[in-house]
Amino acid sequence: MTPPDAQVRAAAERRQAELTKPGGSLGRLEELGNWVAACQGVCPPKQFERARVVVFAGDHGVARHGVSAYPSEVTAQMVANFLGGGAAVNALAVVAGATVRVADISVDGDTDSLIAKHKVRRSSGSIDREDALTTDEVAAALAAGKAIADEEIDGGADLLIAGDMGIGNTTPATALIATLTDTEPVAAVGRGTGVDDAGWARKVAAIRDAMRRARPSVKDPVELLRVAAGADFAAMAGFLAQAAARRTPVILDGVVVTAAALVAEDLAAGASAWWLAGHRSTEPAHNLALQRLRLKPLLDLNMRLGEASGALTALPILRAAVATLAEMSTFAEAGVSTADTGTAENTELTVPADNPEPDEDVSGKPDLRK
Amino acid sequence: MTPPDAQVRAAAERRQAELTKPGGSLGRLEELGNWVAACQGVCPPKQFERARVVVFAGDHGVARHGVSAYPSEVTAQMVANFLGGGAAVNALAVVAGATVRVADISVDGDTDSLIAKHKVRRSSGSIDREDALTTDEVAAALAAGKAIADEEIDGGADLLIAGDMGIGNTTPATALIATLTDTEPVAAVGRGTGVDDAGWARKVAAIRDAMRRARPSVKDPVELLRVAAGADFAAMAGFLAQAAARRTPVILDGVVVTAAALVAEDLAAGASAWWLAGHRSTEPAHNLALQRLRLKPLLDLNMRLGEASGALTALPILRAAVATLAEMSTFAEAGVSTADTGTAENTELTVPADNPEPDEDVSGKPDLRK
Repeated sequence: MTPPDAQVRAAAERRQAELTKPGGSLGRLEELGNWVAACQGVCPPKQFERARVVVFAGDHGVARHGVSAYPSEVTAQMVANFLGGGAAVNALAVVAGATVRVADISVDGDTDSLIAKHKVRRSSGSIDREDALTTDEVAAALAAGKAIADEEIDGGADLLIAGDMGIGNTTPATALIATLTDTEPVAAVGRGTGVDDAGWARKVAAIRDAMRRARPSVKDPVELLRVAAGADFAAMAGFLAQAAARRTPVILDGVVVTAAALVAEDLAAGASAWWLAGHRSTEPAHNLALQRLRLKPLLDLNMRLGEASGALTALPILRAAVATLAEMSTFAEAGVSTADTGTAENTELTVPADNPEPDEDVSGKPDLRK
Repeated sequence: MTPPDAQVRAAAERRQAELTKPGGSLGRLEELGNWVAACQGVCPPKQFERARVVVFAGDHGVARHGVSAYPSEVTAQMVANFLGGGAAVNALAVVAGATVRVADISVDGDTDSLIAKHKVRRSSGSIDREDALTTDEVAAALAAGKAIADEEIDGGADLLIAGDMGIGNTTPATALIATLTDTEPVAAVGRGTGVDDAGWARKVAAIRDAMRRARPSVKDPVELLRVAAGADFAAMAGFLAQAAARRTPVILDGVVVTAAALVAEDLAAGASAWWLAGHRSTEPAHNLALQRLRLKPLLDLNMRLGEASGALTALPILRAAVATLAEMSTFAEAGVSTADTGTAENTELTVPADNPEPDEDVSGKPDLRK
């Protein structure tokens, strides 16, 4: 994978130094803005016009074995909730200025054909005791994710977010991450949606069994997805790798998406340069995966919902980074003295002729105030 | 100060448990949403319709003594930049859905009478060697802040943010915080806008001298503002206390606003229950003040600009908290099984009749998809 454009990034760094603020004073916002410019290949960067969430829905056979607080049927019910606009992802997308697509990759039931276009199978195998997928299925799922990324980017998406929905899916996520980071299960397993102590013990055991099955495939990302993940994970991995190939930035979500990202980086080395970590969840494995990917999360708000909720909460921060780099005036434009020169050419205090009333809005650019 | 409504907060906590997500899975977003409901006195809470920034501008005599990387004239130049829409606060306000007002409290120069309605004086005294204000001036500045809060709340503001602009203002901010937290100057002083090593040493010395002058007034917040702060700080303190008195939530910004908040809490005990810490800046004194106020910042992005930039970057997170609590469906409404019951009454997968095309937007509520 080729990285974001280093020359444009350097131009963005130079522009940051010219804007009406002390150099570096916007901290991480400056780095984020420079990264977006490098991804877009243009400085100043453009505000995202079509930020797009794809929620990958899939069930997991292991959920039948008591690893989750919820029954598998909730996956399909929540898919219906997404389509009805009543889930967290819907509310958060409105605030963040994003739109949401749902893709049934492997829900254990029939959904409307319109969201099941890329469906691979019903559920995936119970990874503690059987392969998640066949060879054909893992190829189909990777291709599905790639096709969805292409459809979205061809449709104008300029920022992609993958989300997940699937009861039991933190079990394969943790198995993947613990296998790839060589971590003991007990150090990686979290409570998922809130499993009790007995369920947590069952989950640890299932992950230990899955890791034993997965370990021989640790160097083969496709085989790892086939043996120890599931169709939804393979689709997310294909989606994330293709976003990088198509030079489209991505905000990662929680432990499930980041597990798929860890595999995608093995499939397509360098893809992670196109990804931003939206947040750190409470799942221990999430932090392990972020560290391995060398991604520093923007937010740390004890979230653990999935369905793109963390990425969407972080999206406005990325918008803020783009807005400051793209919209602020330079010292020269604004006639503001710099730290270096001490005094600008225009040291007179000039108030614009269309100066608003004191209780009137002065937000945004002058032409927005009319 | 009376606190936000505990009964409404309890109702919000109950509603969080009924929404289609595992209990607690939105982490800090849930606490934030409950706090907004308690502040508004209504559950579910309403999304903010008039989030309002007031940037308090003022100069400081101590800036003439080499404590800042920038000359004092930049304060007035930046005020003009705010009015022209070219500063960080303007770009960030657009992203956050807020509007901006500028109030010249003590700029060392003439600004347009429209923003100078509440002006107290030109600059404030150099606190390392003289009082910042007279007795009449500190009273006028406190009253100015109170009046501005009243004007904004009477004008419909449902969320307030104080911002600062003033070359040299991290020097009085640090003196106030170090005095009130009994901290050695070297442990509290930061680089401000980016002062060099020699300037940093001058800043430490100025703060040490100011603290010696301030210490006798540590128990008297009005006298402390008069001796060791400035008119802009007194106005911010009056503004923050009055926001609490008028039961209006506030997002605090960086070290300058939080120094004023620390004094305001002494002026009006309990006011801090109405304030949220937007971020933690790189200024050491900021973290000291947040700890004293027992406020945990939402963001930690190495920002150090002031002018409400940290608070505005955090505002969309608060909007996300309100949106999830207000807009999500309950388990019963969505026909989703809960962890407790195992199975909901409606376990059929029902896809709405107006199910969109797969690549169509399913964001927001159904009526938003038309």
